[in-house]
Amino acid sequence: MRLLRFGPAGAEKPGLLDDNGAIRDLSHWISDISGDALNDEGLNKIRALDHETLPLVDGDPRLGPCVGNVGKFICIGLNYADHAAESGMSLPDEPVVFFKATSAIVGPDDNIEIPRSSIKTDWEVELGVVIGKQAKYVSEEEALEYVAGYCVVNDLSERDFQLHRSGQWVKGKSADTFGPIGPWLVTKDEIANPQDLPMYLEVNGHRFQDGSTNTMHFGVATIVSHLSQFMSLQPGDVISTGTPPGVGMGQKPETYLKPGDSIELGIQGLGVQRQQVISG
Amino acid sequence: MRLLRFGPAGAEKPGLLDDNGAIRDLSHWISDISGDALNDEGLNKIRALDHETLPLVDGDPRLGPCVGNVGKFICIGLNYADHAAESGMSLPDEPVVFFKATSAIVGPDDNIEIPRSSIKTDWEVELGVVIGKQAKYVSEEEALEYVAGYCVVNDLSERDFQLHRSGQWVKGKSADTFGPIGPWLVTKDEIANPQDLPMYLEVNGHRFQDGSTNTMHFGVATIVSHLSQFMSLQPGDVISTGTPPGVGMGQKPETYLKPGDSIELGIQGLGVQRQQVISG
Repeated sequence: MRLLRFGPAGAEKPGLLDDNGAIRDLSHWISDISGDALNDEGLNKIRALDHETLPLVDGDPRLGPCVGNVGKFICIGLNYADHAAESGMSLPDEPVVFFKATSAIVGPDDNIEIPRSSIKTDWEVELGVVIGKQAKYVSEEEALEYVAGYCVVNDLSERDFQLHRSGQWVKGKSADTFGPIGPWLVTKDEIANPQDLPMYLEVNGHRFQDGSTNTMHFGVATIVSHLSQFMSLQPGDVISTGTPPGVGMGQKPETYLKPGDSIELGIQGLGVQRQQVISG
Repeated sequence: MRLLRFGPAGAEKPGLLDDNGAIRDLSHWISDISGDALNDEGLNKIRALDHETLPLVDGDPRLGPCVGNVGKFICIGLNYADHAAESGMSLPDEPVVFFKATSAIVGPDDNIEIPRSSIKTDWEVELGVVIGKQAKYVSEEEALEYVAGYCVVNDLSERDFQLHRSGQWVKGKSADTFGPIGPWLVTKDEIANPQDLPMYLEVNGHRFQDGSTNTMHFGVATIVSHLSQFMSLQPGDVISTGTPPGVGMGQKPETYLKPGDSIELGIQGLGVQRQQVISG
């Protein structure tokens, strides 16, 4: 299933994309695409509905973040060998973990605001993993049982804030609009292998990132298991699993976003995001 | 006012501590101590009630975290000169910012679980700042207008996870139970000067930390303003502002928590937390 949230920011309704690409309204059956709606029972309840008779949504509504009420927005750094190289950093011995602010989360096609004192706002297409049930001390073998599905994430980053403003990366990862997620949460049964998904990102029509999750250093199961040793994961938590080469910081010369730019990014089977860049 | 949340974990009700130290039930008037209940209008609504006629809560209920539905749990590192020195780190030029997982938040007297592979679980008494309304690009002069009040935080930390497990600090800061907050959210009108509050922490009756917020390097107004340049702050966000000297890592020899230990910590005017340490 391709689950989504549609409507004005902060007042999104749950829905799904049917086999014809039309949006169907789920708001009479579930309150949101969040929390317990994401566990096996919750997803099976949606699956059991007759999708072709659900109310059709008129027009072309805004899409919100594909998951509501995200508790943790967890990111994995330097998880593609060639991206680590372009960043001038070595490949880590175990996953590098940081958090983005959940207040950075926006819909897949919402505008991206450049923070007021930003000089280096950069892009990163990433595979997002949505947790479906609480995971604490889980093994790699069982880790995917805790995953509800996958989505596209643009992990926007202000490189100067991230790397040169006293230490931890969080300052460069957390501005409002720095976390578009969606367009859809695609349930895991529709993704045969999360480690073999082509992905790309273009700015103003130029393809900067052109990779695949098959070059990820730590795979999804390893990441979920690893994280669960250090913190519990809850339904609706989103894990962004790192980016392939081609970020702005890795260009020669370095290339960053500016107001007026347009961004398009996508992952095979998970849909496409399109953003306009504006001043914050 | 001293606002609190009482009852079983996950099902807390809002309440307040009256002038006689009794808990009064607020659940008929507000749904929770969270979000818009924390802005000026929301707090004035609670203030306007006749507190001595509110329903008394029988017995001695568990206290939950004093704020519900925390969106961001933000911490400031190395914010006391002498704590930076004991940690072997230099004082930063601007606030060092990191996040704890919101899933780490527990009530003030809940048990502390040592993570399964932990070897260095440590304590940190800290002044918590609770945001009352959205703050984005605010100046130092106006920053305190965005603060609802203050609370005690124990910023528990696993030093090996924090410092020796590939980079960012988040792995050592986010385990379940690593963030007791409370017992109360004390509204800012009752705290004459947040930069002059004695604070302490004891383990098994031995006083390890004995400091005051008057030695904080960056004060509350500076921190709120600074953070708001990098991310927006929302009502119910909690900022933990750093710890004075006396953490376990700073002892000679280093001293860490073990199952069976008891912790007591407090800040003048903000109440006391008491925790038992157990195996995770």
